[in-house]
Amino acid sequence: MNIYQTTKQELQQPVLLLDEKRCKRNISRMVDKVNQAGCTFRPHFKTHQSREVGRWFRELGVTGITTSSPSMALYFAQDGWDDLTIAFPFFPGMLPGLKELEKFASLRLFVNSVSHLQLLSEELLNPFSFYIEIDSGSGRSGQYYKNHNQIKKLINKSNGLGNCSFHGFYIHDGRTYQARGKQQIIEIANSPYSAMRYLKKEYPFAQTSVGDTPSASILDNFEGIDELTPGNFVFYDWMQVQIGSCSLDDVALFAVLPLGQKISDGKAILHGGAVHLSKDMIEVNETPQFGKPVHYSRDSTIMEMDGYISALSQEHGTLVSGDEKLLNRDSVCICPIHSCLTANLHSTYLRPDGSRIEKRILS
Amino acid sequence: MNIYQTTKQELQQPVLLLDEKRCKRNISRMVDKVNQAGCTFRPHFKTHQSREVGRWFRELGVTGITTSSPSMALYFAQDGWDDLTIAFPFFPGMLPGLKELEKFASLRLFVNSVSHLQLLSEELLNPFSFYIEIDSGSGRSGQYYKNHNQIKKLINKSNGLGNCSFHGFYIHDGRTYQARGKQQIIEIANSPYSAMRYLKKEYPFAQTSVGDTPSASILDNFEGIDELTPGNFVFYDWMQVQIGSCSLDDVALFAVLPLGQKISDGKAILHGGAVHLSKDMIEVNETPQFGKPVHYSRDSTIMEMDGYISALSQEHGTLVSGDEKLLNRDSVCICPIHSCLTANLHSTYLRPDGSRIEKRILS
Repeated sequence: MNIYQTTKQELQQPVLLLDEKRCKRNISRMVDKVNQAGCTFRPHFKTHQSREVGRWFRELGVTGITTSSPSMALYFAQDGWDDLTIAFPFFPGMLPGLKELEKFASLRLFVNSVSHLQLLSEELLNPFSFYIEIDSGSGRSGQYYKNHNQIKKLINKSNGLGNCSFHGFYIHDGRTYQARGKQQIIEIANSPYSAMRYLKKEYPFAQTSVGDTPSASILDNFEGIDELTPGNFVFYDWMQVQIGSCSLDDVALFAVLPLGQKISDGKAILHGGAVHLSKDMIEVNETPQFGKPVHYSRDSTIMEMDGYISALSQEHGTLVSGDEKLLNRDSVCICPIHSCLTANLHSTYLRPDGSRIEKRILS
Repeated sequence: MNIYQTTKQELQQPVLLLDEKRCKRNISRMVDKVNQAGCTFRPHFKTHQSREVGRWFRELGVTGITTSSPSMALYFAQDGWDDLTIAFPFFPGMLPGLKELEKFASLRLFVNSVSHLQLLSEELLNPFSFYIEIDSGSGRSGQYYKNHNQIKKLINKSNGLGNCSFHGFYIHDGRTYQARGKQQIIEIANSPYSAMRYLKKEYPFAQTSVGDTPSASILDNFEGIDELTPGNFVFYDWMQVQIGSCSLDDVALFAVLPLGQKISDGKAILHGGAVHLSKDMIEVNETPQFGKPVHYSRDSTIMEMDGYISALSQEHGTLVSGDEKLLNRDSVCICPIHSCLTANLHSTYLRPDGSRIEKRILS
């Protein structure tokens, strides 16, 4: 199915359109930015979950990646990635997966307790390193950055274990996702970045690593930061446009949804519900939006269209719009609210020419 | 993995636990209720999306089912179901799927326009029947129930087409999901049920069909209603407990999540995020809840535990609880907010003894 030549009967179900050119531009821009800042880039691959997209990073020299779980890491390890971070607090159930992974990759883990370091050291055969996850006040996860007692305990413990080395500090501050506009991103990012700079002074041998997409996209000054690990920037989405991390012209993933029924002036039902888009939403002018209609033209220009998805049930999406032409179409192109969650709900990506891009199925 | 004998290292990732006994009890109770009301039962299979669970219905005499799409219908048709309703407004992209399906099943479609009836009549080889979807005021989808002009146009058109017959009226009123308590369900259900009774008098030859789980669970009087097609009742969930459709003891689906880190008094991080539970939430006492911890004991007693999931990111869930023992466990059993969306995110169900129940992967 060529998305530009789709006739009424061709779009049988919701599909995800991946704009390869924009996606590669997002990757290359972030690679350049990280290089210029003198940082190491270990992008999070949970957003795209695709070996093929992963190779686009590799072509630009990226060698280390971040994942959410041993099973996600294994999916990429089987495509040759051998520098893997698992960015979720270690729990003992991870061990069978880690034992499989360590056969062909070096591992960086998130470890919070001395007993877990001991357990890992006993159970793993090869050397591994670990991050101490840091909380600068968001309360999401990790150690409070001034909890020197616990930080030193962990570092000291690792020094006494033969196959374990302390890598550094990691922070993913979800608060930047609450920002609206670049200035707010900069203001909110001050807390996690200051915490990292403080830790870099206290523990100069440690690597400092930051994970959120808004700050990686907007900040210019990465002094005191050694690594960046954003993920969402590969596709961006309508939430990131609202936050101010990117423009609509940077979004690289869209859901193309059959239109089921125009039910009244200003309203149509799309075949696209929570199982195709995810239930994530963003409030714009105090109105919840579950998706944004856009015009994606043959020359791949993207233009915002009037309206938004106002409600989602399992398979139905309600599109409200003042654009009657839009409501009478056979299908509608939707900029997703949160591309990570939308991508996770699909088993493949399509290019506009209809060719497929392989991805992992379900987390 | 036997869920009762799970040691620290056995639960590697989030899994869905299906309580077969409770599930079969939900099915059998609804079958009895529908039979006693003298209605036909065409349950919606979008909730479980499992051939094995479907067979539990068949064993109790169910022969017709409701689905959301041609591809979901095909999954069940391949297991012998040959009386299939596709409960989504027909759009031309459905035709290739319908042509495949009509080879081995009789089809009931939702049709809203005379031109679509004409198209279907030309394109399908076998006889098909159709519902007119009715809106009694919710504005979700369908025709307003007093829009006799459009209703008569559709019925008259079908009378002139050889292979097309009008089956009746269908309503799924999402407003009952806003109810809190049985009395509110009854009050809110008055609108769709009255509309159906009105239509039954106006068009006595039509079958009247109602689709929501709260009213099917709670109402006793189905006078004027010919068919019931609920879906969620097969598992129920924490939202249905809050609505008043069921008790916690009726819920048949749970997510078992590894606990990643106890981060402070009263708070722990679960390995279970929006990609494992869905982002659906319900407000209880004005507080958003994304999941409810329960104790699921070896004799399969279910008990509510203190706390709730207060936030979800892609892979992290924040569990808040005053029960310190719960926060120090290796894994936590969660009653999902919306079982339809949670089930859709998993590729299999597990029984407590660790045996697997096959299901469809992704919508």
